[in-house]
This record gives sequence, C-alpha cells and structure tokens, in this order.
Amino acid sequence: MSRLTPERTDQLYAAVLRLLADVGYDKLTMDKVAEATRSSKATLYRQWGSKEALVVAAIGALAPEPSQLPDTGSLRGDLIGLACEHEDVDDPEMDLVVAVIHACKTHPELAESVRERIVTSRSAEVGILLDRAVRRGEVAPDNPALPFVIVTMIGPALLREVIDGEVADVAYVSRFIDAVLLPALGVTPSAP
Amino acid sequence: MSRLTPERTDQLYAAVLRLLADVGYDKLTMDKVAEATRSSKATLYRQWGSKEALVVAAIGALAPEPSQLPDTGSLRGDLIGLACEHEDVDDPEMDLVVAVIHACKTHPELAESVRERIVTSRSAEVGILLDRAVRRGEVAPDNPALPFVIVTMIGPALLREVIDGEVADVAYVSRFIDAVLLPALGVTPSAP
Repeated sequence: MSRLTPERTDQLYAAVLRLLADVGYDKLTMDKVAEATRSSKATLYRQWGSKEALVVAAIGALAPEPSQLPDTGSLRGDLIGLACEHEDVDDPEMDLVVAVIHACKTHPELAESVRERIVTSRSAEVGILLDRAVRRGEVAPDNPALPFVIVTMIGPALLREVIDGEVADVAYVSRFIDAVLLPALGVTPSAP
Repeated sequence: MSRLTPERTDQLYAAVLRLLADVGYDKLTMDKVAEATRSSKATLYRQWGSKEALVVAAIGALAPEPSQLPDTGSLRGDLIGLACEHEDVDDPEMDLVVAVIHACKTHPELAESVRERIVTSRSAEVGILLDRAVRRGEVAPDNPALPFVIVTMIGPALLREVIDGEVADVAYVSRFIDAVLLPALGVTPSAP
C-alpha cells in the first residue's frame, strides 16, 4: 500500500492534535485516532510505529505560525498585542502543553518535540519583541529579567485556571504585564 | 463489613497520591490502587464510589503542612527560605498538580480540591510573608504585583522542566526571585 499523501498526513496530524488537546496523552489511543481520522489502525502503525511516534510527528509538523508580530513602538503594546493575537486565533498550543505536560516526564521525545516546536517558536517571537525594546532603549541589554520572560509569561496563561478557577483572558494578561513583567524589566509605564 | 480505620484510610490516601503523581490521573485505575494498597476493589468502590471521588478525598485529606515559615527579616530571605523548605521536604504537591492539570479541565470537583488544598495553602503561606514585608515597609501595600505573586512563582517551579528541560532547583528559583519577583514588588536588592 502506498504511503499517505502529504495532504492526508497533514489532516491526520491536525486531527491527532485536536484529539490530544481534548482527551490528554494517556487517554489518546490508536483506536481513537483511527476512528477520528477514518484510517485503519494498521495504516497508523505501519506509518508511525507507535502512539508516541505519531504524536511526536504531529507536534513536529506544527508549522511555525505565519505570525504577524505586533510592532506598536512600545514593549507594552507589543506584548499585549501578542497576547491578543494568540487569543484571537484560538491558539490551541497552550491546550496541547497542558495535555502532555505530565506525559513529558516519562516520554523524553515527546518533551523534546514540545520544546522544539512550541516553546522555541514562542521564545523566538518574544525574543524579537525584547530585542526591539532593547534597541529602542526601553530595556537595558543586561536586565537580569530578560532570560525569565518566557517562563514568567507562560505561568499565568497556563496556570490561572488551576489557581483561580478562571481563564486567563487578555485583560488578565494585560494586568499581569503591567504589574509584574514591565516593572521587572525596568520599563516605566507610559501614560494611558 | 466495617469501614476502614482512620490510620488505614490515611495510608491509603497517601498511596493514592503517590500513585497519582507517578502515573497521572488518566492512568490511575482502581485496580492499580487496590494492588498498591492491598485492598479489594469492592472495598474501594463501597467506600468512595468512584476513582474521582477517591482522588478528591485523598487530596482533600492533605494535611496543611505544619510549615515552619521562614522569618529572616527580609522578603528575599523569606521567599528563598520557602523555596528551600519545599525542596528539602521533597514536596510532592507540585508533582500532583502536574499529574492532574489536564484532568482538572473536565473534572470540576478535582480542580476544586486542588485549589482548596494545594493552592490555598500555598497562597496563605506566601500571603503571610508578603504581609510581613508590607508591615516592614519593604513593599507598598498597594503594589499592583501583590495579587500576582502566586501565579508568578508557581510558573517557574512547574514549567521550567517543560521549557528548558531542566529542573527548577533552589538556585534557579533564587535567580528568578531576584530578577523578576523582587523588582516587580519594588524591593531593592540589598547588598549580598
């Protein structure tokens, strides 16, 4: 039997990621994938060998978003713009991270694929915004908070639901940026 | 048949939480609990009714740690002391949060028990340290970062492993406190 076409493979990966975000890594089964994608389990196993390999391939195929990075002239505007953008496009990547975070502990290849495809591209985006802020003179190039911006921003986005029982929306993320991130980076809030 | 003794129940809850942190919520089964605790499944179902109810009860029974809160005279010392303490006692609560974070989305009672027993007690501890800092005049009582301290601190602890592939140890958390949290709270670093 021939291999799946690239189009069919893309559709299948997208379905795997939707299912994964929905049920979580442990409850994802090849049976569920076969059913959701109208494939045969034999085809799935022949092409990918295992559930872990299929999930790693699906995450690995995540296209870097053709991100229109905001460029508002201020770090505050750029960071809030980035938060809005990810909310507007119904960004499923955070759901994915939550769905696999525990499985990552025992599946190093899975953890590696999450880092490579999701964390690295987010870091790169934020890195561009921070570089601009440094070049504009908004942030000192040796500000010690710079290496912590990603880990600081991702916390509220992922964890507010667990901590407060409420979703982290743009208004919440904006307050967080103003109250924590910009002061830590030494950025003085401009007049509204 | 009589109910389990309180001692036996405590042992059983402890075993459930260890197992949960290890395999995650979805892979935890009543069979595994029965095996690990040498109980019969019939007993487990008679007493708790379901896996979710058993896990909620086990988390609900987590004793508030008889925490010796550090009192070093500075917020920096207190926060770093708190991080050390949780590392020293091999704190399993963060592992628990990771193990159930995805399941919380579809199990509101589970989410509620995590908030009540884990988040609330952590928040209370940090709240005491922050209150002291405000009373000492280290932090302004209306500092806008105050409501975000928990969500900011828990991010690196939970997420560094996913983001950097490295465990968040006390050295890392200390750097984070110095670079992000204290500047956001307007606390000037004292000379080392």
